[in-house]
Amino acid sequence: MRLGLDEKNAMTTKAIAIISSDAPDAARAYEALRKRYKTVPPEEADIIIAVGGDGFMLQTLIAHMDHHKPIYGMNQGTVGFLMNDYREDKLLERLEEAELTTLHPLRMRALSADGKIVDGIAINEVSLLRETLQMAKIRISIDGKVRLPELFCDGVLVATPAGSTAYNLSAHGPIVPLHADLLALTPISAFRPRRWRGALLASDAKVRFDIVEHQKRPVSVAAGPTEVRNVVQVDVQQDNSVDLLLLFDPSHDLAERVLMEQFTP
Amino acid sequence: MRLGLDEKNAMTTKAIAIISSDAPDAARAYEALRKRYKTVPPEEADIIIAVGGDGFMLQTLIAHMDHHKPIYGMNQGTVGFLMNDYREDKLLERLEEAELTTLHPLRMRALSADGKIVDGIAINEVSLLRETLQMAKIRISIDGKVRLPELFCDGVLVATPAGSTAYNLSAHGPIVPLHADLLALTPISAFRPRRWRGALLASDAKVRFDIVEHQKRPVSVAAGPTEVRNVVQVDVQQDNSVDLLLLFDPSHDLAERVLMEQFTP
Amino acid sequence: MRLGLDEKNAMTTKAIAIISSDAPDAARAYEALRKRYKTVPPEEADIIIAVGGDGFMLQTLIAHMDHHKPIYGMNQGTVGFLMNDYREDKLLERLEEAELTTLHPLRMRALSADGKIVDGIAINEVSLLRETLQMAKIRISIDGKVRLPELFCDGVLVATPAGSTAYNLSAHGPIVPLHADLLALTPISAFRPRRWRGALLASDAKVRFDIVEHQKRPVSVAAGPTEVRNVVQVDVQQDNSVDLLLLFDPSHDLAERVLMEQFTP
Amino acid sequence: MRLGLDEKNAMTTKAIAIISSDAPDAARAYEALRKRYKTVPPEEADIIIAVGGDGFMLQTLIAHMDHHKPIYGMNQGTVGFLMNDYREDKLLERLEEAELTTLHPLRMRALSADGKIVDGIAINEVSLLRETLQMAKIRISIDGKVRLPELFCDGVLVATPAGSTAYNLSAHGPIVPLHADLLALTPISAFRPRRWRGALLASDAKVRFDIVEHQKRPVSVAAGPTEVRNVVQVDVQQDNSVDLLLLFDPSHDLAERVLMEQFTP
Repeated sequence: MRLGLDEKNAMTTKAIAIISSDAPDAARAYEALRKRYKTVPPEEADIIIAVGGDGFMLQTLIAHMDHHKPIYGMNQGTVGFLMNDYREDKLLERLEEAELTTLHPLRMRALSADGKIVDGIAINEVSLLRETLQMAKIRISIDGKVRLPELFCDGVLVATPAGSTAYNLSAHGPIVPLHADLLALTPISAFRPRRWRGALLASDAKVRFDIVEHQKRPVSVAAGPTEVRNVVQVDVQQDNSVDLLLLFDPSHDLAERVLMEQFTP
Repeated sequence: MRLGLDEKNAMTTKAIAIISSDAPDAARAYEALRKRYKTVPPEEADIIIAVGGDGFMLQTLIAHMDHHKPIYGMNQGTVGFLMNDYREDKLLERLEEAELTTLHPLRMRALSADGKIVDGIAINEVSLLRETLQMAKIRISIDGKVRLPELFCDGVLVATPAGSTAYNLSAHGPIVPLHADLLALTPISAFRPRRWRGALLASDAKVRFDIVEHQKRPVSVAAGPTEVRNVVQVDVQQDNSVDLLLLFDPSHDLAERVLMEQFTP
Repeated sequence: MRLGLDEKNAMTTKAIAIISSDAPDAARAYEALRKRYKTVPPEEADIIIAVGGDGFMLQTLIAHMDHHKPIYGMNQGTVGFLMNDYREDKLLERLEEAELTTLHPLRMRALSADGKIVDGIAINEVSLLRETLQMAKIRISIDGKVRLPELFCDGVLVATPAGSTAYNLSAHGPIVPLHADLLALTPISAFRPRRWRGALLASDAKVRFDIVEHQKRPVSVAAGPTEVRNVVQVDVQQDNSVDLLLLFDPSHDLAERVLMEQFTP
Repeated sequence: MRLGLDEKNAMTTKAIAIISSDAPDAARAYEALRKRYKTVPPEEADIIIAVGGDGFMLQTLIAHMDHHKPIYGMNQGTVGFLMNDYREDKLLERLEEAELTTLHPLRMRALSADGKIVDGIAINEVSLLRETLQMAKIRISIDGKVRLPELFCDGVLVATPAGSTAYNLSAHGPIVPLHADLLALTPISAFRPRRWRGALLASDAKVRFDIVEHQKRPVSVAAGPTEVRNVVQVDVQQDNSVDLLLLFDPSHDLAERVLMEQFTP
């Protein structure tokens, strides 16, 4: 691992914490690892080992966002794009070899129709969707400038490069290389402008969504586990001041996998 | 008009009813037409004149579905794909010249999680959409055969040719010529199968959607004005026994306009 | 096989011819089948057995187009969408059980810049492509009516339902069910109209392509094995008077496979 | 203009050259400007004024690539994405106010089947296309690593951000913001991998195309005005050591226009 905190005999000195999701496989793996390796509580650890799937990793990254501790995921879930392979042996050696990838989260601030302000954080995307059979009407502004006065649609999302292979791809958005300083703005079923395909934005773009006729056409927003119903306005921006540190086996490099994903039919 | 009921001196003998939407423009047009032309109640009419936009026309078609009476729309709405141009004069002459287009509606039967069965009818499409931030998981069967055991998505829709230029187009489905005996089955943000683009089905296809894990992943369905929340199973089929009769000025032929729509960038 | 020519003891009375492509595997299979089954020359046969891949089947269908004889393909090629599985035994029983699918070919008539008229025939598609780095400019008329005065593009194609899963799909055209009376008109890299997606046309549509500025912007056309360079005008139309008869094992129904292809990610 | 070469009384001291395309409108404009402004030959100029369309601008940029002189385009052509509006008056004032945008060209090196090596340069894209009715088979390597062993297609292209709104968009590639350090790799009618959509690559990616079975399946390459027929191998890479300097009126900023292009339906 190429962290500043590295030391000569890192294997013996680095403190690890192990956490896992509630899924039976993950819980079993957790027990097996705990028997085998000496651990400390997360707050005392140099590295956190997260056992589960992508969903658990996203939770863990956000839960430990302020601690600036690298997270090493091991896959015991159904989707493991952010995870290393699970193996019980040689964990310390793998940590030594692991490479660091830094992601930045999206911050979402939603104003709901009842006047509440809710903050959320997401690693993949922030997405808006209509709540009833009334089509959504959304105004999109970038850096304070209205770019689309009215998008008629099912919804719209802002995705990070890491998230570009997930929901964004389903909504026909482009896959974005991990190190590109870009965000994907992608509509969900754009009705008007007819066949609008979305845009790639600078990674420091401030995106604002205003919900037009929000009483007649209610829209919800989702940022990670946070959902806000009946929103009036949503601001989304990448927070480049927060570094989310992920550790990957050299054979499992995330940038490489996002790249490979582009060559998958 | 080339109906069997045609007669020599049709202009004098054909009884017309005029109805309109509540929109101010439509109401004004209604008054102007009523002053100028002799009308009868809809149930006594040979032809119904509907003044408003597409939304009102869809309502009118469904309201008068069982009467087998041709409807001639005049546009006083924001979207008028199904409407003729509005003009006050020469209405009877235009009706004489008008050509008949026959559409068939979609019938929807939804079973909701609380055990209720709701029937709906739609002219453009029947569409399903997730209700919360949980992605929908939908099993799709065609004519009793499971074709996709699990579609992970925002939703999915079945559109008629007339509806293929509407919501279906927004969801990246193909425009289908009016006289093609086809239905478009189009996913909304297909997550898995990755980038699935949907299918064109025979017009007599029986489409069934089963909502997998419907408690965790609630889905609503919309058919015309009917919305059912938290559905478990939805059946959709075109009802070829019902003929919806629309009258269009020769210059305003619907099949031609669906065709033209395909040559619009 | 459910042909009018069926007889009681068909297995003993039906005369078969076997032909194969030049590929080594196909040639080997041909020898094995010839040893095992009594054959006649194609002109005396009731059924022609074609051993090879899709390319050979397309050739065979065209070569025997006027004989109105059903062709039963057995796959010994790299692509075998139109072929049954290869097995040496029980061939006569399989022929008894086989079901008939009828396709209609496209006829192409090209006028080249040097004044020659070349006729071609195709089962999948007729396609035009620019010949040099000059973008093509093509006028498209349907049934005598100009629908696009100038399509700026790499090219454009017309595909049958059977061909809709081939080149047409690559060019982002929709898959069309086998029994739909439609042709797909699909552009290749439409530059203007920007992002034009093509159209679905009635199966009896007469499509005409005029090459604008053909001297500066040469375009070639391909219909099956026929290629014409530097064309000025190309007419394409399905020939519904020609029935191409294909035999498929019940488990290998072509309509079913075109349908299944739509549910393949 | 914010160049290092700026001086206090720039309006009087900056030497301009004016050049134009052969098109009648451009030639007329050239004469009018020459009457009005004092000019020098391009080699003595501080700024070159190019009058014509995008095609002429691309030529001019390449012709003067090594001189490191800013080019200010004025539109008298059919496509003027890279051009400022044409106006005769206040040219010197406009030059004072103009803002500089730097582009980097793509370098192409092609090896043809007869053993020749041809170098080319392009500002928008380098594109490969099949020459005959035989589908192209192309191996794609990025930075020395094979990413697609065999792409069956009509062709493939590499586009810069500036070029992403041109041919790349027609081939269904994404629009890339001007300041993103990315190249778009976009297939033309990808047949296999089925529906492959291409990839976004780091701007320093070395892209190599090997033509598989080049004798049976000839492919040509185009880089700007350079076309090479029957190529065997093509290398493409952005040359970040060459700065192409374009001047735009503040109201006509290129980055803004690429961004706006993304919000155009």
